[in-house]
Amino acid sequence: MSHNSFGHLFRVTTWGESHGPALGCVVDGCPPGLLISAETIQQWLDRRRPGGSRFVTQRQEPDAVEILSGVFEDDRTNGLVTTGTPISLMIRNVDQRSKDYGDIRDRYRPGHADYVYDMKYGVRDYRGGGRSSARETAARVAAGAVARLVLPGVTIRGAMIQMGPHRIDRARWDWSAVDENPFFCPDPVAAKEWEVFLDGVRKEGSSIGAVLEVVAEGVPAGLGAPVYAKLDQDICSALMSINAVKGVEIGDGFASATLSGEDNADEMRLGANGQPVFLSNHAGGILGGISTGEPIVARFAIKPTSSILTHRRSISATGEEVDLRTKGRHDPCVGIRAVPVGEAMLACVLADHLLRHRAQTGRPGPADYPLHRA
Amino acid sequence: MSHNSFGHLFRVTTWGESHGPALGCVVDGCPPGLLISAETIQQWLDRRRPGGSRFVTQRQEPDAVEILSGVFEDDRTNGLVTTGTPISLMIRNVDQRSKDYGDIRDRYRPGHADYVYDMKYGVRDYRGGGRSSARETAARVAAGAVARLVLPGVTIRGAMIQMGPHRIDRARWDWSAVDENPFFCPDPVAAKEWEVFLDGVRKEGSSIGAVLEVVAEGVPAGLGAPVYAKLDQDICSALMSINAVKGVEIGDGFASATLSGEDNADEMRLGANGQPVFLSNHAGGILGGISTGEPIVARFAIKPTSSILTHRRSISATGEEVDLRTKGRHDPCVGIRAVPVGEAMLACVLADHLLRHRAQTGRPGPADYPLHRA
Amino acid sequence: MSHNSFGHLFRVTTWGESHGPALGCVVDGCPPGLLISAETIQQWLDRRRPGGSRFVTQRQEPDAVEILSGVFEDDRTNGLVTTGTPISLMIRNVDQRSKDYGDIRDRYRPGHADYVYDMKYGVRDYRGGGRSSARETAARVAAGAVARLVLPGVTIRGAMIQMGPHRIDRARWDWSAVDENPFFCPDPVAAKEWEVFLDGVRKEGSSIGAVLEVVAEGVPAGLGAPVYAKLDQDICSALMSINAVKGVEIGDGFASATLSGEDNADEMRLGANGQPVFLSNHAGGILGGISTGEPIVARFAIKPTSSILTHRRSISATGEEVDLRTKGRHDPCVGIRAVPVGEAMLACVLADHLLRHRAQTGRPGPADYPLHRA
Amino acid sequence: MSHNSFGHLFRVTTWGESHGPALGCVVDGCPPGLLISAETIQQWLDRRRPGGSRFVTQRQEPDAVEILSGVFEDDRTNGLVTTGTPISLMIRNVDQRSKDYGDIRDRYRPGHADYVYDMKYGVRDYRGGGRSSARETAARVAAGAVARLVLPGVTIRGAMIQMGPHRIDRARWDWSAVDENPFFCPDPVAAKEWEVFLDGVRKEGSSIGAVLEVVAEGVPAGLGAPVYAKLDQDICSALMSINAVKGVEIGDGFASATLSGEDNADEMRLGANGQPVFLSNHAGGILGGISTGEPIVARFAIKPTSSILTHRRSISATGEEVDLRTKGRHDPCVGIRAVPVGEAMLACVLADHLLRHRAQTGRPGPADYPLHRA
Repeated sequence: MSHNSFGHLFRVTTWGESHGPALGCVVDGCPPGLLISAETIQQWLDRRRPGGSRFVTQRQEPDAVEILSGVFEDDRTNGLVTTGTPISLMIRNVDQRSKDYGDIRDRYRPGHADYVYDMKYGVRDYRGGGRSSARETAARVAAGAVARLVLPGVTIRGAMIQMGPHRIDRARWDWSAVDENPFFCPDPVAAKEWEVFLDGVRKEGSSIGAVLEVVAEGVPAGLGAPVYAKLDQDICSALMSINAVKGVEIGDGFASATLSGEDNADEMRLGANGQPVFLSNHAGGILGGISTGEPIVARFAIKPTSSILTHRRSISATGEEVDLRTKGRHDPCVGIRAVPVGEAMLACVLADHLLRHRAQTGRPGPADYPLHRA
Repeated sequence: MSHNSFGHLFRVTTWGESHGPALGCVVDGCPPGLLISAETIQQWLDRRRPGGSRFVTQRQEPDAVEILSGVFEDDRTNGLVTTGTPISLMIRNVDQRSKDYGDIRDRYRPGHADYVYDMKYGVRDYRGGGRSSARETAARVAAGAVARLVLPGVTIRGAMIQMGPHRIDRARWDWSAVDENPFFCPDPVAAKEWEVFLDGVRKEGSSIGAVLEVVAEGVPAGLGAPVYAKLDQDICSALMSINAVKGVEIGDGFASATLSGEDNADEMRLGANGQPVFLSNHAGGILGGISTGEPIVARFAIKPTSSILTHRRSISATGEEVDLRTKGRHDPCVGIRAVPVGEAMLACVLADHLLRHRAQTGRPGPADYPLHRA
Repeated sequence: MSHNSFGHLFRVTTWGESHGPALGCVVDGCPPGLLISAETIQQWLDRRRPGGSRFVTQRQEPDAVEILSGVFEDDRTNGLVTTGTPISLMIRNVDQRSKDYGDIRDRYRPGHADYVYDMKYGVRDYRGGGRSSARETAARVAAGAVARLVLPGVTIRGAMIQMGPHRIDRARWDWSAVDENPFFCPDPVAAKEWEVFLDGVRKEGSSIGAVLEVVAEGVPAGLGAPVYAKLDQDICSALMSINAVKGVEIGDGFASATLSGEDNADEMRLGANGQPVFLSNHAGGILGGISTGEPIVARFAIKPTSSILTHRRSISATGEEVDLRTKGRHDPCVGIRAVPVGEAMLACVLADHLLRHRAQTGRPGPADYPLHRA
Repeated sequence: MSHNSFGHLFRVTTWGESHGPALGCVVDGCPPGLLISAETIQQWLDRRRPGGSRFVTQRQEPDAVEILSGVFEDDRTNGLVTTGTPISLMIRNVDQRSKDYGDIRDRYRPGHADYVYDMKYGVRDYRGGGRSSARETAARVAAGAVARLVLPGVTIRGAMIQMGPHRIDRARWDWSAVDENPFFCPDPVAAKEWEVFLDGVRKEGSSIGAVLEVVAEGVPAGLGAPVYAKLDQDICSALMSINAVKGVEIGDGFASATLSGEDNADEMRLGANGQPVFLSNHAGGILGGISTGEPIVARFAIKPTSSILTHRRSISATGEEVDLRTKGRHDPCVGIRAVPVGEAMLACVLADHLLRHRAQTGRPGPADYPLHRA
């Protein structure tokens, strides 16, 4: 089966191919009465939009979003508000150049989903990867923009922390640097080095992988569930659903394996205001599937772009061995554009869990169970 | 909300606390007509069962499974068969020793879900972690045993490949070694070293993390979906839902970040029988969310057991700062017992996707779309 | 596929056959902190229990419920409370007499699900109808008892309003009469007549259908949704899922077809307290899929018990034409025992929608949007 | 919560308001490789389209459908085929006349969802009923057109069988008459009478209810499930989700209540070809939640249009008592346009269950379990 929805209460369904007339999403379950505008959504789409630098595909897509439903402007309100009904968002495809893809109609590009599509569906839209094109992620970013409206007080940010073998120095982490280089890199020194590195990759017609980190601050304690709707599980699932992602971790992640119980356990104390304080955040803001109130930290690894200019061995749909290089306009490091996508997915998961939490407690935000003081 | 089901067509709902009368699961969606027996399920539970060595909790639980529904013995069949109706499996709790937990009734154990439970629910069953106890995983293993019945021809195996900082040598990988040491370690040399290492950890009252690997062989190409029911996404979600897991990766995983497009793409050729052959498996058997026919390889990192004998700083539910050490019977490396659990989760995901695939194609197994030969 | 769950946030999964060792349900999504006890659940089961009069099956089942999980007794609480985790309820089968069913092993009883089971599953548990036995409804009643805990202030009651061709006189409706006759009949005069009528049916070895009505009072306005989670839609689905139900209606139901727009529209005025008042309730408490605050009124029709002592023509699983009468212990009017089941299903749907509403508004009960006063 | 999806494997999500820029649906789960065209979908939309006669709203909507995704034209195929990915269908709103609705902005129209919308959402799009407008059903009809592609060999037809108090004579039932009168009436004599009757209703500015019947022929035995995905349950849920529906029944429906077990049970014999034959169809093609192979027969009652020209008492959102008549263009009998909608919903449910059945059996159509011949 094809399944194209995620989320339980804040549910997003995306649709559309890279080379069809349009793509979009339906956001179902957004609470009513939230101020919304196409401009708000557009600003997030613009962050993801290709064509911004020489390091991303040169395809020119304005990615202009249209809000087709679920909103209403009443003179009792200050502008457009959500009505609680499904919000349909559409983005027209503009710069498609389908002819670029004719020569791979019958050939399976290595590292791409071409072969498995044929195995699954028996028919595939070979233009630009069809449904598995990264263009689908524009719809995710639009949905994430709506999710952010459900999360006032929560800050969700992302960054690229490793390109190929080159990792940032976390001591130099500066969120303000993220928007000042073409890589969403929080380390200005690393960003300079990556520029040289990626120019080399690009000129060779090669590509390279990356590691990204997304962080949510301001998430209150108590979101999630202990067994199969774990907050970390749903975040991992959401990030893993992004194209080309091959690994996901929370907090110390794989490094936890090397820690002792003493080192790993985040100790607690009471803060100045008498509220619980964690003295470290190895857990990445989630214990037993439930948020602790500390920043939620997730990282995900993205493989190198599969479309490269080097010939690779493959086969054709007609049963011949072929050698194949992928022409066309592509990203030397698809990880770059995945930063806004990762943020959007994290926002959607948190919005969903906030609504789930409300269902349980009947309160606007997470539980505020007082400590059982004597 | 509490959610305790996973799977879309092969759906498992688990229930039960560590210290209640019983725990169990309902497996819904299992096809009819499959031979089943309590013994078949029991053998997998026995693999996971604590009490087997000095390296796992000394709690003595027979974990004897009862099949309460969904099966029928007819004289037209050779024994018990599934009927297509929900299979209810129950395991009685036997060795509970609730008094061990009285002293943490009002204290939040660091690294445990105690604090977040109170934040989420406002009430918690403090005996043994309640719902977030690793005992819940017995129900998963039972469900996984049923899932395996849906997957004839598929071999699902797991192993521990890293304990603390000590990684196996993959050149020495030997599946037959896995059952000959207390760690499910496929490297007999490493297993010897781990024994010494973990004895040290245990004697110090400390604990250590681990990395596990699960592999499914014989999975045909074509299972999964390109967007939100990606096979890798569902595997990650399932593995991440296991207690103490902090990271998951598929194929080359986080190492993909350092690869070039040329190195990462698995090339294809036609094999001796004219069928497609991949020349490598960096993808871990999944491309674009869909199985390739190569072995599916997933790894997951498990943090060290949070229950340790060293005092750690924490707070109480009554708002005081406390120092806390966890007495009781615990595992120095919970990762060990997670091997059968990881296998079970992988089996459940594959069974679910096999049924989804049938829905699409109307065929017993995955699509056998012939290559479009001239 | 077999599907055995209903509800979105308050989700019930039932399992168990008529002649297996036990049956039960898992109630997932029940909020934490609600007082609960086996006795509370048992009282509703006792209402449904067969063996109470000569008009229901003489099978003797104590239907004693065990709570296996999801509850906890803490000395800070006054007895057992829900913990927010799945509540597993089990009822052992006691009086099964499997041998009664041997002679229909290979024969399809007319009006029963025997034939379609074989067409769907290719294997069936022929003892007592297996999964399609009315015994499954005991699990529903147990779940409904939990649902009622979520709905303080809501009164849910049911009655039989027609037996065969004999309808009650609504002018004589008296809720207190319902528990004073073996038919849950609110009209004491009709109840007397039905007794004579049903004795005749029973002595002939025949059976008869019925119409039931369930009413929920105290449901606030605003529960439901305008399109595919309509409150009336979910109520109909829940009632239609009860064995032998062939029709469902809300408010004026089928009679609405004969009404003019003027007669059908429930007019509104402001009541003594300035709150909105409906002057009639043709809508049965639901407009556009959303509750109005008026009593919710649903009716459902139940066909006559299919097991009768008269020979009927049928076929065998081995392809022969046979004549068949069903021996064993059966109800001359299965509609009787469906009254507590209908109440339970209505309670489950309302609990589910209350939680959905909370998710949207973040308030314990339904929206209390003030009228937009000048 | 707002929920706007239905179906489990063949899943439809609709979006759009009466007076927004467009409405539409996403059909997810449609198998790949089915021939499809906008024209095929359009023909069903044209059947539902208002403006066809003086008996339906004079709103002029071309209801032209655009296929935005999920299809592909390859020169290996004879035209457009489904790809197995989500099919996004959009219909632009054209003739909206929003000013007609200004005067009910703050007033609750009796019989409409206006009041409950405010209670649920606290904000509403008052133009034309927003989401609860019957225009939403255009999206259902489009989805139903796709569902029919999944059901080759199944004929799904609908008819109006009662208008107000006037019921057809079933002895005169003639499917070919249905398209020859403005009422989808299968009885040509009744159709003539209804014309006179409805002209009277229309001229009075009043409205009237109706009863509709939908029938699916060619549905094989074995679709459905015995407990909570009963075929009849899902059909009832789907029909009940249509605007203004107040009752649903299957087969003999409410009349079953008056039948004896002997009369109600459909007897069986072997037909000329040795296949099972039912001698009657009181069950309406469904026993125990599973299809029997006989025609599936469902009826549903539709209340009179709530928009009428007579003044009715109501209240305003600002807390005043008002008298209200609804101007604008409306249907004197909304039941008429519900016939294609009922057909579409039945098609969607059957497509969903066919896919579910495939999942279980791994066969293209329903199980073909041979009778267990000696």
